[in-house]
Amino acid sequence: MQSDFKIHINNNLSILKEGKLLIAISGGIDSVVLAHLCSQMELQFSLAHCNFNLRAEESQKDEAFVVSLAEELGVEVFIQHFDTEVYAKAHKCSIQMAARELRYDWFKELAKQLKFDYILTAHHADDNLETFLINFTRGTGLNGLTGIPMVNNNIVRPLLPFSRRQIETFVKDHKITWREDASNASRKYLRNKLRHDVVPILKEINPQLLDSFQNTLQHLNDTVVIVEEQLSAFKKQAIVSEDHLGTTYKIAAFKAVKNQRAYLFEIFKNYGFTEWNDVEDLLEAQSGKLVKSNSHRLIKHRDHLILTTLYHSEQNQKSILIHDAVREIETPIGKLSFNRVEALSDVSNTTIFVDKATLKFPLELRLWKAGDVLHPKGMTGKKKVSKYLKDEKVSLLEKEHTWVICSENKIVWLIGKRADERFKVTKHTKNILKVTLR
Amino acid sequence: MQSDFKIHINNNLSILKEGKLLIAISGGIDSVVLAHLCSQMELQFSLAHCNFNLRAEESQKDEAFVVSLAEELGVEVFIQHFDTEVYAKAHKCSIQMAARELRYDWFKELAKQLKFDYILTAHHADDNLETFLINFTRGTGLNGLTGIPMVNNNIVRPLLPFSRRQIETFVKDHKITWREDASNASRKYLRNKLRHDVVPILKEINPQLLDSFQNTLQHLNDTVVIVEEQLSAFKKQAIVSEDHLGTTYKIAAFKAVKNQRAYLFEIFKNYGFTEWNDVEDLLEAQSGKLVKSNSHRLIKHRDHLILTTLYHSEQNQKSILIHDAVREIETPIGKLSFNRVEALSDVSNTTIFVDKATLKFPLELRLWKAGDVLHPKGMTGKKKVSKYLKDEKVSLLEKEHTWVICSENKIVWLIGKRADERFKVTKHTKNILKVTLR
Repeated sequence: MQSDFKIHINNNLSILKEGKLLIAISGGIDSVVLAHLCSQMELQFSLAHCNFNLRAEESQKDEAFVVSLAEELGVEVFIQHFDTEVYAKAHKCSIQMAARELRYDWFKELAKQLKFDYILTAHHADDNLETFLINFTRGTGLNGLTGIPMVNNNIVRPLLPFSRRQIETFVKDHKITWREDASNASRKYLRNKLRHDVVPILKEINPQLLDSFQNTLQHLNDTVVIVEEQLSAFKKQAIVSEDHLGTTYKIAAFKAVKNQRAYLFEIFKNYGFTEWNDVEDLLEAQSGKLVKSNSHRLIKHRDHLILTTLYHSEQNQKSILIHDAVREIETPIGKLSFNRVEALSDVSNTTIFVDKATLKFPLELRLWKAGDVLHPKGMTGKKKVSKYLKDEKVSLLEKEHTWVICSENKIVWLIGKRADERFKVTKHTKNILKVTLR
Repeated sequence: MQSDFKIHINNNLSILKEGKLLIAISGGIDSVVLAHLCSQMELQFSLAHCNFNLRAEESQKDEAFVVSLAEELGVEVFIQHFDTEVYAKAHKCSIQMAARELRYDWFKELAKQLKFDYILTAHHADDNLETFLINFTRGTGLNGLTGIPMVNNNIVRPLLPFSRRQIETFVKDHKITWREDASNASRKYLRNKLRHDVVPILKEINPQLLDSFQNTLQHLNDTVVIVEEQLSAFKKQAIVSEDHLGTTYKIAAFKAVKNQRAYLFEIFKNYGFTEWNDVEDLLEAQSGKLVKSNSHRLIKHRDHLILTTLYHSEQNQKSILIHDAVREIETPIGKLSFNRVEALSDVSNTTIFVDKATLKFPLELRLWKAGDVLHPKGMTGKKKVSKYLKDEKVSLLEKEHTWVICSENKIVWLIGKRADERFKVTKHTKNILKVTLR
């Protein structure tokens, strides 16, 4: 195996020969083999071991083993202890998920601080096959069937083309010792179930399963590139505008392709939507209809679909009270400050001046709502806010994100747009209040 | 299940309500349930049963069962006997493959002759899952992971959304009888291995496996449409010409995309190529390099890749001898005729006139080869055929398909292009021979 490994590194991962490497090591067979192979190739590496304190004495023995391995190989070793169970409870996730998050966070931090170029993990071809089967079993799309990437930012998996059997043969041939992970032997976890019950039968059906699988992955990954190329051309056609409020797509672009649902899925799949029939129905729906995911909304607005996060529309339904004593307050739209000033200076979209005596505290900061009425400063008479925004040709999204400051439910400021005549500074004003949004 | 079936037919397969249907029936649980469901919906159908004579008495009992079922349902039944083992031996294929070919050939013939609109087979969701796993295990690309189509030309599979379990519940609830297929119970075949050993574990992991699988298939099929759309746009860019000789692609088009190998694979995958690295190397190879499959060649020619069948280039290496007595002969390039005529008429690309006395029989018909020399009629002097074709700007493919008639290895006719001066009709000619290619 070591000569195949050498060829593989030289041909496909020559970046590792120049870099400073950090090998993630559990003490299990895979990562121990990776360390030995890197050592034989005289790559420049250190070891990083996580002690998750999940298996009492066994965890301590793993740690001791890794320390002695580092000594044997003459390399540096980093050890970190985690209280995995506490983390899992706090984050309401599984122990496995907790261990995964803790591990990668620490590796990345370590790599950043100590300037390691690459983090190496020991995933191999059988891990890759198991991941494929897990995704398939759960239900997925093409992207879920493309396997573990060999290089993903600074994380590199040099053993990915090699099978578990090759690794086992290597340790036998070289009399290498390693630590059996107790959880590997049990069938407790999903992955072990596939490993012990499903994969052996598939290998019985096709003894060349791992080779066929590599070819399949290669073809599927190649296909992904074609899909991405088509989607990128499609987006160029479809996207009208894209800013911090959201992205606007031409409905006509979806209607021009052969399979609109396919494009809807590909374009919006990363935003948590699950009701794809509802999404498709939007194309024909009345203006104003929308579909929500946990994080986003997709809104039909005339000839467009608008994608926006839920953040603004949902989290900000509550109003905020601003008391007389407040000089500065953090709000969902920025920092509002209230200052007594002696004279007017430049008025802008983000600054107004009001006669403090006209205000009744606490003021209320909230999104505008139907029925709100504005006496636009400098004009005689009043106007519904809805009509004002329409006349000003404010976009649907901007409308949704327009806030007001009220005094006794009378609008003082249609924020960013217009102050109200009723609260303006006059020659009788004694206390001028400057209100600024930053 | 029957109400779900009814909804499914009404929503997705309403074509079946108007058509004349032929149900392929083995007597096994799936096809028997399909027949009962179609009967309950009062669809207009007949049964067609293949007796493959593979299981002696059991095969006879299956046949008798189907006949009595037809009687019970009050429908027509067609029975056909096959000698499957003989067919399999003759066609060097497996018994399963033989049965499959025989079955579909007969169904299609029957449907054509008796004007059935659709042939119905009883494949269900579990069959579909097994097919996916078989393809995956063997190694495949996206198209191998898109499942069995519900409608494929005139073959329709109405049970595809239903699980084996639903079918089993239906027979229990309705006390329907059917014939156990002995081969189903054994683990003899690949499919049964997956059915009994692999799928149950996957269903244990995810009890909603079949639903997830339907979603996965939907997504993958949607993705196929996107890929096809991109490939069709790519072909418009890449294909320079397409005729009976082959198809010519601009190499620049492959170099302009993000992943040339992906496009090479998708464009040429249906022509039997397996050495994809060699195919990719062609883009940079010297003009004249080629890669062969069992049926096709891909040739690098200057700035182009030319795809052509092997037929012309391989099968026609042999020369054909034409004796004096021959008046007409079938050749790989068409029918050649030799006729004595009294006077010259119109010469054309496909007709020449020669002085018979100048010929030495038998003549030889063969592809031109390096070293061939032509004395072009109407010119003084001679020219190498290679130079002649180059000067005439004949395309690579046409060059390869250019034949000659020789007399004692001297060229009489560069067929379709030029006669030879040495054999022309003169005022001394006594016997004029008219040679025509049709």
